[in-house]
Amino acid sequence: MSDEKHTGAAAARQILEMNAFDARARTSNVNPLLERRLANAGAASVLFYREPIEIVSARGSWLTAADGQRYLDFYNNVQSVGHAHPRVVAAVSDQIARLNINTRYLNRVVDDYLEALKAKFPPALSNVVLTCSGSEANDLAVRIAEAASGGAGIIVTENAYHGNTAIISAISPSAMKRRDLANHVVAVPAPAAAEPGGSISDAFAASMTQAIEELERRGHTLAAFVCDSIFSSDGIYAGPPGFLQRAIAQVHAAGGLYIADEVQPGFARTGDAFWGFARHGVTPDIVTMGKPMGNGFPMAGLATRPDLLERFCEDTGYFNTFGGNPVAAAAGQAVLDVIETEQLQENARKQGAHIRDRIRDLAAQDERIVAVRGAGLFIGIELCRADLASNVINGLKTRGVLIGAAGRMGNTLKVRPPLTSTADEADLFADRVSETLRASA
Amino acid sequence: MSDEKHTGAAAARQILEMNAFDARARTSNVNPLLERRLANAGAASVLFYREPIEIVSARGSWLTAADGQRYLDFYNNVQSVGHAHPRVVAAVSDQIARLNINTRYLNRVVDDYLEALKAKFPPALSNVVLTCSGSEANDLAVRIAEAASGGAGIIVTENAYHGNTAIISAISPSAMKRRDLANHVVAVPAPAAAEPGGSISDAFAASMTQAIEELERRGHTLAAFVCDSIFSSDGIYAGPPGFLQRAIAQVHAAGGLYIADEVQPGFARTGDAFWGFARHGVTPDIVTMGKPMGNGFPMAGLATRPDLLERFCEDTGYFNTFGGNPVAAAAGQAVLDVIETEQLQENARKQGAHIRDRIRDLAAQDERIVAVRGAGLFIGIELCRADLASNVINGLKTRGVLIGAAGRMGNTLKVRPPLTSTADEADLFADRVSETLRASA
Repeated sequence: MSDEKHTGAAAARQILEMNAFDARARTSNVNPLLERRLANAGAASVLFYREPIEIVSARGSWLTAADGQRYLDFYNNVQSVGHAHPRVVAAVSDQIARLNINTRYLNRVVDDYLEALKAKFPPALSNVVLTCSGSEANDLAVRIAEAASGGAGIIVTENAYHGNTAIISAISPSAMKRRDLANHVVAVPAPAAAEPGGSISDAFAASMTQAIEELERRGHTLAAFVCDSIFSSDGIYAGPPGFLQRAIAQVHAAGGLYIADEVQPGFARTGDAFWGFARHGVTPDIVTMGKPMGNGFPMAGLATRPDLLERFCEDTGYFNTFGGNPVAAAAGQAVLDVIETEQLQENARKQGAHIRDRIRDLAAQDERIVAVRGAGLFIGIELCRADLASNVINGLKTRGVLIGAAGRMGNTLKVRPPLTSTADEADLFADRVSETLRASA
Repeated sequence: MSDEKHTGAAAARQILEMNAFDARARTSNVNPLLERRLANAGAASVLFYREPIEIVSARGSWLTAADGQRYLDFYNNVQSVGHAHPRVVAAVSDQIARLNINTRYLNRVVDDYLEALKAKFPPALSNVVLTCSGSEANDLAVRIAEAASGGAGIIVTENAYHGNTAIISAISPSAMKRRDLANHVVAVPAPAAAEPGGSISDAFAASMTQAIEELERRGHTLAAFVCDSIFSSDGIYAGPPGFLQRAIAQVHAAGGLYIADEVQPGFARTGDAFWGFARHGVTPDIVTMGKPMGNGFPMAGLATRPDLLERFCEDTGYFNTFGGNPVAAAAGQAVLDVIETEQLQENARKQGAHIRDRIRDLAAQDERIVAVRGAGLFIGIELCRADLASNVINGLKTRGVLIGAAGRMGNTLKVRPPLTSTADEADLFADRVSETLRASA
């Protein structure tokens, strides 16, 4: 396994390079706003595209740029019920004018939301901690697992991304540029590697056995397997549903917790279920969530069992100043309401299947499309080469469609339309992919 | 120094117990919303007061509870330009209806704000990274310092609080219930401990010498001294301005960075200057900020030198999904505008001095008031005993005024009125303190 940690870091560099703006390669077209950004944010400037886009407004699936160009936003999984959804905008505007305060005071808006959210979880996960970001949620989740297990060993996938705090960067191989994985972290291959004739379930379970043994060899007690069940940054491996079960059973048998990182697949995106883990018929010990939770209002959190939270809180007081403020709760409640009243889980299932069908039709005529994967509106389109993926992403941008890249080699197109996307938008996307592929070498 | 880490943890327990709701001690008055909160948030429920308050709305300095009672909020340092300030409400409502997107796209609102914020800093700190919380900002700051110094040694004050992520909890003695400080962390006493006739500057510098030597003895290279220059959780030690200079010079001489944690004293609260560090005439290597930055909109960040940020980013890619979104930028810009147009730094200086004068008048007649400290509207009132402080805090609540506690022993009243507070509100507060002290044993 020791070779793979280097490969993970190399793959991350690959993806960073293929879809990202590179200041060293900037063209002679001087963009004053770009120069300002580079001066203001320095090395932490992370921008998309060879020529970054200035966006001025957005609504539903559409972004409008400063030059008037409109873009179909099929990459964004934060404004997941559509940009500037009127119900979320109204909820935030109304609540921020009335009250924004921390959770040291009681407020009904907060507990109404906590209960609506809890209703989406298995009953055992009856305690919720609200945070500001998925990173904070995962940071707390890992410490809850450490306290519960008495160990520090963590298993993740080879190109995982779980957030940006110190301990979460350390379990996010895709964020590492030239560091290696720490001794207490072992990476398993994404569940793509079934031998011909073998099952993904068997292959992933075998990887898990090896990883648990490797941690033991290194003298680490297993604290947790942290897993994004759609394997987003690994390249999007959605099926078959259920393939996680044996691996999770092994984690539990070894005394570790299963932390389901639902920051990417959660909130109905996969169409099959409200949560990614539910597609696999497994029950996590901790669920973390973020990105689409408030449709862009900064909020995140975790759900867990009371005994696990209590064990952690015996050692460390946990309070989050902004986490669980009533404006976040109002935004989160509006998102839950919109998903239900607009039947967005069903729409994700339907439009996602339609997009995959359309792309599979293209694949039948274009062998450069190696595989079409995903669930609901979380779609991976694997191409034969990373440079082709880069050309397609930039070509689609020229044609007014925004998507991204995923996978160890960066050769998988990552497609995440708003859950509110229409069949017309799905067709427009497929048409533009077809045109772009025809024009790309 | 090894004894003090235990004392720090004990003091934290003391403060937690004196101002906090304790579920084990709940009265027979059943509060259904309280029961719901305990069921929803479990061991992470952190509530103020023996009988927690349900707040339904707020405006300016005033909170309104569900039972109609109004409270003067002299504790809150998040909604620092006043609850539901119309200009912040309008900025958030307007921008969230127009565009909320991540920093991978260019947006003018974001860079206008970054430049307005940078104008508040020494010119060398020309790169800003926006995050969601002060915890995230400090988490990143410590890693920047580690990368720059090649070391991991951290110096903090004995009852410091810098946030809730794993590595920041580890340098926050006041968050520790029964853990000890890690080997790479050394705590120095708050700058209150000048010998009679000695200077605070000398005493603090001497503590710093000892701490640097202690880290050396343990084999740790100094990465940073992380310091809240108002020493909020240590008991609020504001003066004399300049006493930090010698200690900071020692940190730099030892190769460490000075991280100014401005989450508490920043954004004009101290009246003397926009930032707490500026009161001391020192230039930090990294400034972190949070709480009042967006008047409650979840946002935070850090400012640093480009070379330091670049060094960190060589190893680790840093991206923050919600950090620097245009809604946060609009909120932050509104806060800067309000501070300037309403002259809130000057108001903080004036009303703060007025409150301290009024309390000093009380102290002249009541020897239970040991000291009145602070700068601007960040005020500490040290009482002779922790149980008296607890009685005063709860007695003030009964009289419609909210404040908190600080200090190693929890015997200092922590008073942080909105920067918009009026002379009438200041007088009302002083009158209520006088009444409460008269009624308290």
